[in-house]
Amino acid sequence: MGKAYIVGIGATKIDEHWEKGIRDLMTEASLRAIQDAGISKKEIQAIFVGNMSSGYLQGQEHLGSLLATWLGLPGVAANKVEAACASGGAAVHAAYLAVKSGLYDCVLAVGVEKLTDAPTSDATSALIMAEDQEYVAFAGFSFVALNALVYREYMRRFGVRQEDIALFAVHDHKYAANNPLAQYNKPVSLEDVLKSPLVADPIRLLESAPLGDGSAALVICSEEKARRLNKDVFVELAGSALATDILSLHDRPDLTTLSATVKARSMAFKQAGIDVNDIDILEVHDAFTVLGVIHLEDLGFAKKGEGWKLLKEGQLEKDGKIPTNTMGGLKARGHPVGATGVYQIYDLVTQLRGDAGANQVPDPEIGLAQSVGGVGGTVAINVVRRVR
Amino acid sequence: MGKAYIVGIGATKIDEHWEKGIRDLMTEASLRAIQDAGISKKEIQAIFVGNMSSGYLQGQEHLGSLLATWLGLPGVAANKVEAACASGGAAVHAAYLAVKSGLYDCVLAVGVEKLTDAPTSDATSALIMAEDQEYVAFAGFSFVALNALVYREYMRRFGVRQEDIALFAVHDHKYAANNPLAQYNKPVSLEDVLKSPLVADPIRLLESAPLGDGSAALVICSEEKARRLNKDVFVELAGSALATDILSLHDRPDLTTLSATVKARSMAFKQAGIDVNDIDILEVHDAFTVLGVIHLEDLGFAKKGEGWKLLKEGQLEKDGKIPTNTMGGLKARGHPVGATGVYQIYDLVTQLRGDAGANQVPDPEIGLAQSVGGVGGTVAINVVRRVR
Repeated sequence: MGKAYIVGIGATKIDEHWEKGIRDLMTEASLRAIQDAGISKKEIQAIFVGNMSSGYLQGQEHLGSLLATWLGLPGVAANKVEAACASGGAAVHAAYLAVKSGLYDCVLAVGVEKLTDAPTSDATSALIMAEDQEYVAFAGFSFVALNALVYREYMRRFGVRQEDIALFAVHDHKYAANNPLAQYNKPVSLEDVLKSPLVADPIRLLESAPLGDGSAALVICSEEKARRLNKDVFVELAGSALATDILSLHDRPDLTTLSATVKARSMAFKQAGIDVNDIDILEVHDAFTVLGVIHLEDLGFAKKGEGWKLLKEGQLEKDGKIPTNTMGGLKARGHPVGATGVYQIYDLVTQLRGDAGANQVPDPEIGLAQSVGGVGGTVAINVVRRVR
Repeated sequence: MGKAYIVGIGATKIDEHWEKGIRDLMTEASLRAIQDAGISKKEIQAIFVGNMSSGYLQGQEHLGSLLATWLGLPGVAANKVEAACASGGAAVHAAYLAVKSGLYDCVLAVGVEKLTDAPTSDATSALIMAEDQEYVAFAGFSFVALNALVYREYMRRFGVRQEDIALFAVHDHKYAANNPLAQYNKPVSLEDVLKSPLVADPIRLLESAPLGDGSAALVICSEEKARRLNKDVFVELAGSALATDILSLHDRPDLTTLSATVKARSMAFKQAGIDVNDIDILEVHDAFTVLGVIHLEDLGFAKKGEGWKLLKEGQLEKDGKIPTNTMGGLKARGHPVGATGVYQIYDLVTQLRGDAGANQVPDPEIGLAQSVGGVGGTVAINVVRRVR
C-alpha cells in the first residue's frame, strides 16, 4: 500500500448554470485539475465520477464513459460512484482505493451535479432519493422536513436556542464572500437568517444549503508519480474512510448524532496516524445549520450538545481553534450534491497550498473533510496532509 | 497487492418479480452469498452495489446504505457503482480494488436491477440513458435501434447471413433450460427466432435479451482470509479490468468491434498471467445475438467476421473448444442490467466448482466474464481461476 497524493485540483464556479450541461461542467473541472497537476491528460488511467441524480434529473447515466469521451480519453477505466449527497466523498475514496491497490498510479476523482434546469423532474423529489423511497418519501417527507426533525430534537434535548445554531449560516456566508467559486458572495446577518422564510419548521431558508450546479475534480497519484512532478507543496491523501448508518432516521436510536461520522472518523484517523487534535482545518457537511453543529460534536471537537459554543466563541474562524468551512461551506460556497465532497477537498488543498487569499488560515498542515449522504446514511471522511 | 478470492456466491432467479422490490432482491442475493461463503455477515466490511437505473425507475438512490441497513450491517462502507449495463462488472472491479488495496479483507460485490413494475418511468427510456441523452436519445434512438445499426453493418461488411448470427439465441436457450435461476427455461429453434417479431430491423424479438429483475452477489476476500475457510475449491479473482470507448456509436471509426473489449482484455490477461488459449469457459454480454458474435472476435477467439463460425461449428457448446454462456447468457438466463456482470461470475464460479449439473463443462480451470455498458462505452473483464 503506497501513499496517495493529490497533485491537481480544478472546479467550476457553483451557480445556476443554465447554459451548461452536466458534461460541460465535469469536463471543465477535470481539465482544470489536469492543467493544475501539470501532467498530460494521457497520464490519467481511471476516472471516478461522484454524482447522485443524473439518471433522475438528466436521464443520463454512464457518466464515466461520457466524461472519458469528452475529455478525449476514451480507453481509460471509468465509472460513476453514488452514495447520495456523499457521492463526492465516496468518489475520492474509490480513487484512494484505486491508487492504493497499485493497479493505477494516476486517477481522477470528479464530483458533478446539476440540480437546476432539469428536463425530467424536480430537485426536491431527486433529493429524497437519498432516503427510503418506499417508506419515507412515499409518506410525504421531503429531505428538509427530515432535517427539521433533527433540529427540533437537538434544541429540545440540549436546550439550545435557534439563534446559536443559525449562526453557522452567517459564518459560511462571511467566508464565501471571498471565494470566487462560491454560489453566494454576499454576507448575511443573523437577523437576515432568522427572518428568512420558514422552509420546514424550524429550518429557515437561509439555514439551508442552496440548489446549484457545479463540478470539482482532483488528480490523485501514487507517491512515486507525484514526486516526479515539480511542486512547491505536496498534499497527501493521508486517510480515507467510508461508513454507513441505518438509512432511515425513524429507525435510529438517536437523532442528534450521526454514528457513521464517528465510525468513519476513527478509521480515517487510524489510517493517517493522527487524532482530533492534529486537525488544523475542517470542512463539514452543513446542509442545514444544525448539521454543522452536530458534525463538530461527532468529529470530536466538542461534547454532545456543545458544538454551537465553538461557533459562538469564534473558534471556527480562520484564526480560531478549528478553522471550519473557510471557503463558504455548503450553505454559501454551495452544495451541488455529488460534487460537494470533492469541492471540500478542493478547498482544503487550496488552504494547504496557501492559496486561500483573504480566507487563508495560518499555515495549516492537516485538514479533514466530512461528506454526508442522506441524513447520515453514509459518511465519507478524507484527511489531507501537507508534505514538503 | 495480495490476491482476491471469491468465496461465496448468491443470486435470485431472474424473473418479473412483481412481489419484490429492489431492496428485497439485493438483500436476498447478498444473504445467499454470505451463507454460501460460510462466514458470519459481520465479517463483511464493504459493499459495492452495481446498478444502473434505480434512480430513474424506482426513485431510489443511496442503494449502498439501503442494502447495508437491510442486511443488518449498518456501519460498513458502501456505495453504488454505475457504468450502465456494465455496472455489475464494474462493481466487481471496485471490490477487486478494495481487497487489493489492503484496506478491506472481506467485501460484497452485488448487482441488482428491477426493470419491471417501475413506478416512475419505463425500461426503454431507462436503457437509452446508457448512451448520450442529449445527442442520441433526443434524436429518437432506442437502445435496440443502435444495436440494429451494428447488426446491419456486421452483415454488410463480412457478408454474414442473419441465420448464422441468430443461432446465438438458440444456443443460450438450450443451456438456460437447465438453469433454475434463468428467466426462460424453454428451448427455442432457429425458426422460432427468425420468425419472431421484428424489434428494430434486422433484430428479432428472440435475438434480444429480455427485461427482467434480479440480483446476484459475490463475497470477495483476501487470500489470507479465504484460506481460513473450509473449501473444497477456491476461486481466485485473478484479473479485473475496466475500459471505456467513445460513448456514442456515431463517433466511432468502426461499428463492428468494441475497442474497450480489446483494451480490457489485454489488461486482464496481463494481471492473470494468461492468454486467450488459457480460457476454458466464457461468459459474453450478448444483449443482442450479433454482439455475442462480435465479442468472440474482440476477445481473440476468432478473426474479425468469423465469430459466427465458432457458434455454427458447435465450439461454444459445453464440450466445445470454448464453452460460452453455458448457463443461458443474457438472452435466456436474463439481463437485469446492473446485475448481469455479477450473474456471469456467479455462473463461472458454479462451473469451476463443478456444480453446473446438466450444463457442466468438463473440468474448467480458468473463466472469463465480459460485461458491456451501452454499445461498448464501457467494458469490464473479470477472470476467475480455480485453485485447489
